[in-house]
Formats: sequence, structure tokens, C-alpha cells
Amino acid sequence: VEPAGALEEHAIAVRGGAIEALLPASEASGRYADLERVELPHHLVIPGLVNAHASAATGLAGGDATLLACAEMLAGGITCFADSYLSPESALEAAHAAGIRAAHGILAAEHPSAYASDFDDYLRKGLALRDRTREDPLASFFLAPLAADALSDAQLRHVAALAAELDLPVHLRLHETPGEIERCVARHGVRPIERLEKLGLLGPNLAAVHGVHLAPREIELLARHGCSVVHCPSSDLGLARGFAPVAAIVQAGVNLALGTASAEACPRLDLFQEMRTAALLARAAARDAVALPAGAALSAATLGSARALGLEKSIGSIARGKCADLVAIDMRAPGLLPPGDPLPRIVHAAGRENVSQVWVSGRLVFAEGKLQNPPLGTLDTRRGLWENSKARAGS
Amino acid sequence: VEPAGALEEHAIAVRGGAIEALLPASEASGRYADLERVELPHHLVIPGLVNAHASAATGLAGGDATLLACAEMLAGGITCFADSYLSPESALEAAHAAGIRAAHGILAAEHPSAYASDFDDYLRKGLALRDRTREDPLASFFLAPLAADALSDAQLRHVAALAAELDLPVHLRLHETPGEIERCVARHGVRPIERLEKLGLLGPNLAAVHGVHLAPREIELLARHGCSVVHCPSSDLGLARGFAPVAAIVQAGVNLALGTASAEACPRLDLFQEMRTAALLARAAARDAVALPAGAALSAATLGSARALGLEKSIGSIARGKCADLVAIDMRAPGLLPPGDPLPRIVHAAGRENVSQVWVSGRLVFAEGKLQNPPLGTLDTRRGLWENSKARAGS
Repeated sequence: VEPAGALEEHAIAVRGGAIEALLPASEASGRYADLERVELPHHLVIPGLVNAHASAATGLAGGDATLLACAEMLAGGITCFADSYLSPESALEAAHAAGIRAAHGILAAEHPSAYASDFDDYLRKGLALRDRTREDPLASFFLAPLAADALSDAQLRHVAALAAELDLPVHLRLHETPGEIERCVARHGVRPIERLEKLGLLGPNLAAVHGVHLAPREIELLARHGCSVVHCPSSDLGLARGFAPVAAIVQAGVNLALGTASAEACPRLDLFQEMRTAALLARAAARDAVALPAGAALSAATLGSARALGLEKSIGSIARGKCADLVAIDMRAPGLLPPGDPLPRIVHAAGRENVSQVWVSGRLVFAEGKLQNPPLGTLDTRRGLWENSKARAGS
Repeated sequence: VEPAGALEEHAIAVRGGAIEALLPASEASGRYADLERVELPHHLVIPGLVNAHASAATGLAGGDATLLACAEMLAGGITCFADSYLSPESALEAAHAAGIRAAHGILAAEHPSAYASDFDDYLRKGLALRDRTREDPLASFFLAPLAADALSDAQLRHVAALAAELDLPVHLRLHETPGEIERCVARHGVRPIERLEKLGLLGPNLAAVHGVHLAPREIELLARHGCSVVHCPSSDLGLARGFAPVAAIVQAGVNLALGTASAEACPRLDLFQEMRTAALLARAAARDAVALPAGAALSAATLGSARALGLEKSIGSIARGKCADLVAIDMRAPGLLPPGDPLPRIVHAAGRENVSQVWVSGRLVFAEGKLQNPPLGTLDTRRGLWENSKARAGS
């Protein structure tokens, strides 16, 4: 779904962390005189960006890394991210502390790690964490089989059954490399997507992460089953994976989401960058200079990513009843002047340096270059975390 | 040439706008006690970025647009840009006012415009401007045939002769599209690069802008003649031009420069973006995840671009005798922590939001989020130019 386009002179009424109304500013002061007023002349307010695939903690152990990643993302207008790294507990703790919404992967893997001993143990720990976290309005969950080709048919059927029973999204890296596809053909006689279809995994809950090497009939299959594709353009480029057929994916009606993927391939957790790269790359890959319009790129980074996380009813757009996850962009920067059609400006000219305020569920978490949320305190995102991080690393 | 890598605890002594020494900080306070001292703990200082192909004014008429473009570039660590738009006079005036170094295109075209009536008139006006500007230490010039396929052999020979006589670089869009190549083959029986070779244009002064569709033997030809290629990755992607063979270009020893190109294709004048996109795209195009190392990308955006403008003796690196065009990057941002190998961080994680100070010839032009240079005044780059721009647009 394309965003409706920008409304001028409008107000967003927020109560209890939710959007109560979107209305002309002239009507708002009368109808909502009881609410605190934040005036944003020359700003554009967009839905909080949703990073549908991040391994926030890769590269550094545990919570400190995730806290830095949360700080980086909030300051860049990302109000929700999906994490599937090997320490959901510390990711959850860091996200909670930072005040960012997060979807956590309930891991499913066979290989023993410091986190879990085998397939059942991974699932048990993830589901237990989900049970303990029912009270946290910023936390949600999805099933995250780490490598489908390391799991048996029975294990993947179990994941499908769990997803159906608990209505959880399933995120897995799919058709990312030719090698992954060849191994699956050698072992199972079919390509990974066909295997997942046979095992009952294709459906609106399934998000194919990366989806670089997709044949036209496979894109049709994903569309028919209502699946999502989480496109990670910087990561795909950086790891030389190939060029995802994004124009064809969107054209077929598959839900497109965006992610920054792993820190090795893409150390910058920046969805402005991913929107722009996705839009540019879609044109280059399709040899079509209008392949992915700016509106579609913004939609992928907001509602599309929200849908891939099963959160499309609560976030991803500025609509009555949804959480007030909002990002204000100051349109007075030299690179955004003169005023004009806002969507191409947001995608092709704006960057996270233009983010002036960020709210998560109506709570101000970033303003004036500083995170507003303890324990990140009012630390300057450009200056302040250094000492803090050194202190933590040394503690 | 790869940058030497980062030096720790070093000082740069600057006198009269030039770099007098690069030395350990412990020695500097004694030897240069007479100089004003700027301490930059936790910062990395890089050479000012050089935008080797920008049409700063496209999209808006005249000097106001160029002034906004200069403001955007300075705030993003770009201390020099090459402009080849249809109003060198107003570009020169804006660059001078903003305090940014600029190389101006002496246009060579046949089609009449508001600027000039024919080929001779274009050259005459450009050369006259160059003569009038000999006193401006921030201005330099290059020859800019706007479309080689619209010029006759005699005209291009004249450009070559002028370049040799005045030792001026020649920048032209070359092998950007298959259509350009086909038209040249149909008209002249050879591909554009071969045509330029016959006409005596290939040499160290020639910079092939874009260079997307290059056969291996053409890359060899460019290398043999010491030419430069100005790579414009965002523009090439956005216009669906194809994928420049950047890894092969660098491998062959061709000097690589970077540019943002036209505002239509790439409205963001951001060389951090272009460095990162170039590095990522080179890997993807070459199917090689180590194709363009971070050091090579930074080198292209600094010394490589300086060389393409004939300015490699005065800018592009931090070396004794060169102009003090310097950019300080605050490495304490969440996305740049924890400290580690700086080159990959600069190219893959940093952005213009991390630029804390910018100097052009030793003069501070950007600090604390604000341009420091009248007539841009101490305007906040994120906030202040709006009113100013409105006032100018209305005047």
C-alpha cells in the first residue's frame, strides 16, 4: 500500500501513547485543548521506521552492543527493530532500557551454542522468554529458524505448527545464495522455497529474508501465499550476493520489508540509507529508472516491515488507534530545500541527520541531537556515549 | 594510492592556510607554541572530501541553488567540488561566498543557450572567467565538453590543444549509456574512447565521467594513458545506467575519482554516501566481497578526485605543503563505537552527521552543526537556511 501522501497543516492527537486522531491543525486546538502541544513548523512527520532484519549485537558481546545499536537506530528514526541474534534476553533488556520497540527472534537451530543445546532447547528458551514478557508493550516475537538447511523436515514442520498455533511470524534467510539453493536441491530434490511450501511454511506469516535469487515462478508462489520478503540491500551488495528482483517482487504483490541485516555486511543501522539504496538498486537491477518509487520505498520501511513482523495493526502508519511511533524530519536543511514533493525528498535527499524528534508510543525518545531516555539519559548521540561505553566495557 | 592509515596522537600544524607539518602531538606543543591550538580527542581527521562531478545548481536557477548546495556539501565534509552547470559565473560567486573550493567547468558545446551562442562563445566566456579569477585561491578550472557526440572532430581536437596548452583537465561523460556508444559507432565507426584516442584527448588530463560501459581493452587504454574515471555510483544506479566495472578500473591502475553527479539522479550531495555505495557496488558488480577496500574508497573521494581535477599537488591528502582542507569526524557516535580500525568505520559506518568541524585552507567553515562563514553566517545547517532562502527566493 502506498502512503496517502503528505498532508499539510495537520495535527496528530496522541493520548495514552496511541494516535487518537489525524486532523486539520485548525480543528485540533479546539478539540484537543487538554493535550500538550508540540508545534513542528517546516517539519514532516513520518511513521517510525521499522528495521525488519537486524542483528543488532553482532560484533560485540551482549547488551552493551545492543544498547549502542538501539541508540544509533533511535537517533536515525528507527522506532522498532527485529533482532535474531544469539542472546534474546540481553537484546530484550537493552531494547527495554532504550525505549525502542523490538521484535525478538525465538531461535530454532540444531547446533549447540552458549545459548542453547539443541532444537528443543532453543525453542523452549525463546518461548519461555515470550511468556515472561507478556507485560512489555514494546516487545513482540517471531520464530527464527537460523538456517533452514540445517533443520530436518520434521523440525521445520514443527516450526510451521508453532507459528500457526501462536500466530507468530516466521523469519528465515531464504534464497540468499546460490550455494544455499544448490545444497537444498542436492539434499531434498527441490529448491528451498518449494521445500518450505511442501512443509506448510508458506503463508502470510512467512518472511523470506534477503530473497535475492528468486525465479519468477517463486515470486508468484510468495505472492500467492501472502508472504513477505525482507530486502537487505546494503548487506546483499556488501556480501556480493547478487541483485534482488525488487521491482518484480513488488509488482507481483509480495509485501516488501526492509532490513539492515548483519553488522559485518552493513555496520550502519540506517533505514534512510536502506530506503535510498533499495530505490536506486531496484532501478538498476530492473534497468528501469522508475522501478521503485519513493512512496513504495517509504512504505516498505514502515508498513511493509511492520506487516512482516505481524505488527501492521499497531504500527507502520499514522492512523487512528495505532501506537504513536513518530519521527519528525526538519525540512529546512540545505539539502532538503527548496520545499517540494516530500516523498522523493525523504527517500532520496533526507538522512538521519535531518531527524529532529522521535517518539515511541508517544514518549519522546530523541530530540535536539540527544537521546531523551534513561539509562541513555540525555546523552548526545554524537558525543556522549563514549565515556559511558568505556566505563561499561571496563566494568 | 592507499591512505597510509590512521595515526594516533598526532597533530597537524597549519600556517597561512597550509599544512606545515604532521607530527606526534607530544612534539607539537613545543615546536608550534605560537599557533592556536584545537584539541580533538576521540576524533579522526581526514582530508576534505572532493566531489569530482557535481551539477550543484541543477533543479533551481542560479546562485541560490548553488549556495544551498555549497552549504550542504560543506556540512558533509566536502571541501571542493567540480561544477559543470550552465552558469559558471553564479557558481563561482556562490562558492566564493560559501568559502568552499571549487573547480569550474569551461564549457564546450555547440547548442545555443542563455549562457553562450556557439562553441567558440562557450570557450571564450569560460576562459575569460578563468582570467578574471586568477586571484581566487579557491577557484580552479577544467575543460567541460558537455556532450562529445555533439561536437565535431575539429572541435574536440581544439579542446585537446587547449588542454595541453593551458594544462587543464578535461572532464566529459564517457561510455555512460549504450546509446551514446552506438551513436558514435554509427557516426564515426569507432566507440567514443577510441574516437577520443584518435583525436589526442586521452592522457593524464582526461577524466571519463561515469565510465559505466567499458570493455577490458578500454580500461587498459585508459590506464595506459594515465586517465581518470569519475565514478558516480548513486547517479548510475538511479538512472539505471548499469554497473561500472570499478574493481577492474582500480585493478588496471586507472585513477578513480568520485562524484555525486546531477541532482535529478542523486539529489543528495553526500560523498560519505558515494564512498559507501561505491565500495558496496564494486563488490556486487565484481561478485567479490573484497573488491574495493575502504581505504581505496576513501582515497578515491580525496586524492583520486583531486587528481582528476589537477589539484593533487595542493589538496587530497594530509601532507606538508598542501592546503589545510580538513574534516574532523567525531568517533564517539553510537554507530562508530567501539573504537576499531578507522578506515572501514569512515566508509561503511560514518555519515555526514558525524562531521564535527570542516576547514578550507585552514579556515573553519563548519562547526557544531553550523556553517561559520558569512554570508551563510552561523546558520544552523539543519535549521537556519529556511528563512534566508525564502527571503532570497522572494527578492
